[in-house]
Amino acid sequence: MPEPRYAVGDLDRLARDLLVAAGVDAEDAAITAEGLLAADLRGVTSHGLAHLPRRLERLASGRVAARPDERIGRNTPLSAIIDAGGGLGIPPSRRAMDLAIAKARATGAGLVAVRNSTHNGMASYYALRALPHDLIGLALTNATPMVVPPGGRAAVYGTNPICVAVPALEEPPLVLDMATSAAAWGKVEVAARTSAPIPTGIALDGAGRVTTDAALALTARALLPLGGAAETGAYKGFGLAVLVDVFTAVLSGGAPGQSIVEGGSSHLLGALRIDLFREPHDFRRAIDSLIRELRATPVPPGAPPVSLPGERETRLEAEHRARGVPLDAATLEELRAAAARLGVAYALEPAGV
Amino acid sequence: MPEPRYAVGDLDRLARDLLVAAGVDAEDAAITAEGLLAADLRGVTSHGLAHLPRRLERLASGRVAARPDERIGRNTPLSAIIDAGGGLGIPPSRRAMDLAIAKARATGAGLVAVRNSTHNGMASYYALRALPHDLIGLALTNATPMVVPPGGRAAVYGTNPICVAVPALEEPPLVLDMATSAAAWGKVEVAARTSAPIPTGIALDGAGRVTTDAALALTARALLPLGGAAETGAYKGFGLAVLVDVFTAVLSGGAPGQSIVEGGSSHLLGALRIDLFREPHDFRRAIDSLIRELRATPVPPGAPPVSLPGERETRLEAEHRARGVPLDAATLEELRAAAARLGVAYALEPAGV
Repeated sequence: MPEPRYAVGDLDRLARDLLVAAGVDAEDAAITAEGLLAADLRGVTSHGLAHLPRRLERLASGRVAARPDERIGRNTPLSAIIDAGGGLGIPPSRRAMDLAIAKARATGAGLVAVRNSTHNGMASYYALRALPHDLIGLALTNATPMVVPPGGRAAVYGTNPICVAVPALEEPPLVLDMATSAAAWGKVEVAARTSAPIPTGIALDGAGRVTTDAALALTARALLPLGGAAETGAYKGFGLAVLVDVFTAVLSGGAPGQSIVEGGSSHLLGALRIDLFREPHDFRRAIDSLIRELRATPVPPGAPPVSLPGERETRLEAEHRARGVPLDAATLEELRAAAARLGVAYALEPAGV
Repeated sequence: MPEPRYAVGDLDRLARDLLVAAGVDAEDAAITAEGLLAADLRGVTSHGLAHLPRRLERLASGRVAARPDERIGRNTPLSAIIDAGGGLGIPPSRRAMDLAIAKARATGAGLVAVRNSTHNGMASYYALRALPHDLIGLALTNATPMVVPPGGRAAVYGTNPICVAVPALEEPPLVLDMATSAAAWGKVEVAARTSAPIPTGIALDGAGRVTTDAALALTARALLPLGGAAETGAYKGFGLAVLVDVFTAVLSGGAPGQSIVEGGSSHLLGALRIDLFREPHDFRRAIDSLIRELRATPVPPGAPPVSLPGERETRLEAEHRARGVPLDAATLEELRAAAARLGVAYALEPAGV
């Protein structure tokens, strides 16, 4: 049975109302709602409204500040640091991205690091904001320890995702938005719920052995780096993740690697002006060509064409905007319970299936 | 039996003499010799002097221009494009890196793209040049088609390596220098020579199936992206490689993706000033802490500690500078034959074993 779909405007209103009821100011509530919905629109449900109830709990317990003291630190024509004051991660990240865009438009490049933040949702929400300005967008974030370095047997660093968004002309933009682990934690959670095996090479069990048993992997909380084993390039996934810690936590003076705790995550948002190198229209046309060449890669008989980074998400977003956003029953129930707890009217009605 | 070792100065002189005899001017010969030797020093033998005979052949046949018409194109305070004129790849890449460093020192960041170039050797040769200036170094290059996108069955893009170098204080620098394929082509070549199997998940056979047979992989010339299979993240290795094509070929107006041929490769060299964000000394000390935390990751009983990106190469370089550079018999014989062909005195004597 397909999940019921909801109108974007209805979901946005509910998310904003819940956040405001939890003490967040109207502007940050609106930005957070938009950032979470951006993930559901692109089919990245693990970073969408499903994540809102957890945020509301942390606001309630005070582990995330509802009215953080956000400050700008070192600030140059190319760069800045924002201290997020331990509040929600999406609002300072979006302000950082917009500041990076403004700097890039003025000087050619902008890089804004955020420290003392929390989970900032889907990285491509930020990187995509660069594209209408003929900029390339960048978003990095570190995360709490959940990945094991090659040769190690304990999770000591985060899934540390990397996102780069590149504008095309007629084709959908290139949007790579990837954890530097072999797979996302959500893959283990979903497999455990459905008692399905996980692929070999994405997680360890409690004894430090590679496992295909999702239940064991769920308990161990030890993902493998992109590349899986040492002989298939795990040092590369590990190395990329270390660089993400460098460009987020070390550059900003935040908490790197093993020492990240809830409330200590760091991000980097960036933008680069295409006309530093060539006319944006020519660049966009060349990106179209690159996409079309790669899509024409020979495939096995009957197989679909090769898919470019972000292509599927762009298609899903268009479909969800037109037909509504599907939400799973568990998320709906959690949102309903949160609304009851916070005294928010819950009037969500399916817009279709 | 250990390979004989040679003094760096002797190898440098021979390489320069061979390149000058092949028609290259003295400055470009010196830069090329240094760049190749930098790879042997760091133990990256596939990109070292073993690669010189092939370059000499291409100079002789005219496929690589000995005296290219190298020109600077668009040039801004943050960026430039160099057209390498179809010559050797190392000299314009080093000039591009040094230009990026000068721009970064002046403005905060520098990015210089190179088009119409050829194989530019080991990427970390360039990125490492940034470190003494309290800069982070970046080197990207695209390459001739040798990797198969997820879901495809033909090699349509290159191993497109990514290198980032980050300075530490007392610890060796962090130097990630990685192909975006699961393994380097050299791994298949070496396994085929020794009739050893290759790991599963790094290459396909001629029928488009994953193989562990190095001989079949050698004929097919079809590596897999970092991540291996779709379910273990191959779209990530593919996506990173596409971005490398964007930042090298598309930005510079060079040849991207499927259309790269010998003489058409493109590079990007970059530098970023650390003090845009914080005092370099504090940054370096924080990098030391990050390295030490990660090195302290629990490992299985008796196992060596977790190794950081570039740590092994830094150790090898110190050893090779002190005790000489080991060279394999096949490379020595090819260098001797090239010297005879070009009328260059070959007086290489082992400095030790």
